[in-house]
Amino acid sequence: MATGRELVEKVVSLCKRRGFIFPSSEIYGGLGGFWDYGPLGVELKRNLKDAWWRDMVTGHDDTTAPAGLPSPYAMVGLDTTIIMHPQVWKASGHYDLFHDLLVDCRAEGCKARFRADQLASSRCPLKPSKTPGEHDACDLTEPREFNLMFKTYIGALVDPESESYLRPETAQGIFVNFKNVLATARVRLPFGIAQIGKSFRNEITPRYFTFRSREFEQMEIEFFCRPEESDAWYTFWRDRRFAWYVALGLDSDRLRLRDHGSDELSHYSCGTADIEYAFPFLPRGEFGELEGIAHRGDFDLRSHMEGKLIRDDQGLAVELDDRGRPRHSGSGKDLSYFDEETQERFIPHVIEPSAGADRAALAFLCEAYTEDNIPDEKGVPQPRVVLRLHPRLAPVKAAVLPLIRKEGLPEAAQELYRQLKAQWNVAYDEKGSIGRRYRRQDESGTPLCVTVDRETLAAGTVTVRDRDSTTQIRVSTKELTSYLAERLGCY
Amino acid sequence: MATGRELVEKVVSLCKRRGFIFPSSEIYGGLGGFWDYGPLGVELKRNLKDAWWRDMVTGHDDTTAPAGLPSPYAMVGLDTTIIMHPQVWKASGHYDLFHDLLVDCRAEGCKARFRADQLASSRCPLKPSKTPGEHDACDLTEPREFNLMFKTYIGALVDPESESYLRPETAQGIFVNFKNVLATARVRLPFGIAQIGKSFRNEITPRYFTFRSREFEQMEIEFFCRPEESDAWYTFWRDRRFAWYVALGLDSDRLRLRDHGSDELSHYSCGTADIEYAFPFLPRGEFGELEGIAHRGDFDLRSHMEGKLIRDDQGLAVELDDRGRPRHSGSGKDLSYFDEETQERFIPHVIEPSAGADRAALAFLCEAYTEDNIPDEKGVPQPRVVLRLHPRLAPVKAAVLPLIRKEGLPEAAQELYRQLKAQWNVAYDEKGSIGRRYRRQDESGTPLCVTVDRETLAAGTVTVRDRDSTTQIRVSTKELTSYLAERLGCY
Repeated sequence: MATGRELVEKVVSLCKRRGFIFPSSEIYGGLGGFWDYGPLGVELKRNLKDAWWRDMVTGHDDTTAPAGLPSPYAMVGLDTTIIMHPQVWKASGHYDLFHDLLVDCRAEGCKARFRADQLASSRCPLKPSKTPGEHDACDLTEPREFNLMFKTYIGALVDPESESYLRPETAQGIFVNFKNVLATARVRLPFGIAQIGKSFRNEITPRYFTFRSREFEQMEIEFFCRPEESDAWYTFWRDRRFAWYVALGLDSDRLRLRDHGSDELSHYSCGTADIEYAFPFLPRGEFGELEGIAHRGDFDLRSHMEGKLIRDDQGLAVELDDRGRPRHSGSGKDLSYFDEETQERFIPHVIEPSAGADRAALAFLCEAYTEDNIPDEKGVPQPRVVLRLHPRLAPVKAAVLPLIRKEGLPEAAQELYRQLKAQWNVAYDEKGSIGRRYRRQDESGTPLCVTVDRETLAAGTVTVRDRDSTTQIRVSTKELTSYLAERLGCY
Repeated sequence: MATGRELVEKVVSLCKRRGFIFPSSEIYGGLGGFWDYGPLGVELKRNLKDAWWRDMVTGHDDTTAPAGLPSPYAMVGLDTTIIMHPQVWKASGHYDLFHDLLVDCRAEGCKARFRADQLASSRCPLKPSKTPGEHDACDLTEPREFNLMFKTYIGALVDPESESYLRPETAQGIFVNFKNVLATARVRLPFGIAQIGKSFRNEITPRYFTFRSREFEQMEIEFFCRPEESDAWYTFWRDRRFAWYVALGLDSDRLRLRDHGSDELSHYSCGTADIEYAFPFLPRGEFGELEGIAHRGDFDLRSHMEGKLIRDDQGLAVELDDRGRPRHSGSGKDLSYFDEETQERFIPHVIEPSAGADRAALAFLCEAYTEDNIPDEKGVPQPRVVLRLHPRLAPVKAAVLPLIRKEGLPEAAQELYRQLKAQWNVAYDEKGSIGRRYRRQDESGTPLCVTVDRETLAAGTVTVRDRDSTTQIRVSTKELTSYLAERLGCY
């Protein structure tokens, strides 16, 4: 079984060869930290996001309390803009605090830029055997702050008044809509708001394939609850989200759940856990974050209510408004919650399960990538590559293959193809030997192949071949749809 | 029936009240040209995009030629980045040509900015009864060009080398991946590539609710074919895309298909048609574009191959590369197609059906908005608002309502709710009178209400109420799922 660097090369090569992932703008030399999804990749990612949406939002039962918890909860969705009011990022803290420390090399012919916290693992461009600073020619600056938000300008003028940012996370779109949801969706605490969408971070060193990209897609939930119940809900979400990945096929010891130590917690957080995966792209033994589940207390809603005092560039004088009052970064709007039963008013606490859709897709691809040997028509073992993707995630659910291209078999196969197509993404393929067609589908992760042969015409049955075991069984064409529905377990 | 300004106010009010659409960053005063989708809106838009994807991509039968056309065609999807290599926009022409002409007013206290082509319909901010220029104090500049692309910077440096743009259309992500798709997806001409995603245009005057936004979502297809077949495919796509809107409920005379006159065509286009809707937001009698279907010839692929000569700012000297050769804006990559059957090499022609997801959502909402009178429990006609959305588009497919909150009815209703929830987005509601609950679902566009009453417990039947006719019929609980599947006609 391939591991480490070898597995990396194989997965990247498969992604390119089968049309899962391409470098963005590749004909212009690519663009660091930006990746496109090809015909199979877009279906994988759609299935992944749909599975999340169905499991977390539309399929959620809001009438029954989870085991051991005091109440049922509701889930609703939201889709907010990527460009938001710039004040959002001042209130959230991203404007002041969301930065990396960078070190430049002033040496002639170098002018490289490094993340201060990655100096030890970086290479000097002039002397790649050395780290920056180890080499005589290196001339490093002191670390300087660099904000990770992409800046742009709204309207025709390029001036500070029109500055805006591409969101670095989808979460703030949820917080600023908290009152709107409360006013329109007929929800009561506890409830969650879910959102899927693109976010942008101007990473200095995008790397590890799609793992650290500058443009990426998030699947975030902000779950609002009573402060005294928040610890129980934190534990619930942490475990529920971990189980979600396991159920979709990340069931090896490459997946782990790691509670943060108290030294890692933000000042406002009573608990944070990461769901991590040992991506083969990372240095040996390292795990990378798939999703963080954070207990954020009332930090976010309170920040958007009150914010903090706005000070000048030196952090000294406090800005005043027209009427001489100190200005705050918050909206000044009341984001508290009134509980009609207990007649209490308070700011809800928040549990935030924040997942990366691209990282999840990459983890599922790495986990699914398998090499084994299967016997060919003559019984001789032949190596094959197979993507053992969960049926819900597989880009194509089934392929319909006429055994030969004559005697009415293509026509019969196409009829079945059209029948199955009404329900699933199904492929039809009549080109090449049957063994070769099977292997194409194996590499694409297609769970089932339906082979149409002379028996189909004579007895109304087809062969259904299982991707992972390669075992074949005969099924009546009349029962084919319901058989596939059972095997695939999904729409 | 409400029309014009009155209808506008009612639709906007319903969108806000029921959680379809909110102003972006509303607690910070909003942001012109940016809109968020609330809990019902996000489901409507997801359903719309899923319907498009299923009808155009995954559900498409690629084995049968459409009536009157020479061949079947394949469709595949793609998901490319919003930030692309800046050279893409030089080759596509957006860098040079994608601009509005703006006029500034230099007058003290005004400083307003207008689109030159909208001067006649604009108002002088100092004298709102006048158009700009009509008033003595107006001091207008000559029209100046303003590029509509949002600019940003990749990496830590703000300099021309790191300038990049948010895509103003998803189409270019398809063109630059043409060879990648050809190499990996096993497609032959004719075939189409589809993409759904956000695009950004820095409109000077965003207006008409979500109709002209700065951030919006597109559903675009680039359909590649042999040049001699391109006219036939153009007609096919124009008619097919028009029929799609009609089938989903835009079946009034507010929808129209308009072929461009020869004076409106781009120099490279042999035909363009717009699918237009008479949005109530627009001035009376005007139609707004929902989708454009353009015959683009080989313009786009050729631009990304060859581009044009890069000249200096004055348009005079041609830039030279290191070896003294003139530089072109294209990639220099071969984007031609080799037909193995005919042994010909050529650049395919392109038909582009380009739709706006937000405009479509808005059109479906306007078309669905209806006011009528229905009898209450005592037979007295009561006014109601009902959203007659197509079942495929409706955010919630059915609501399960126990008639009273006792005698085991809630429990029985919840059991049915969980059963239906496995398949559709279904609501459960036990609060308020049954008439009031029906009206809440009517306003949300929910096609069917399932009412659980004493008969349910005694005889195993429920009442299914139709949103539009308000007629009710009794259905056995055992047959409820299959009955709903038939009525909804969707998963």
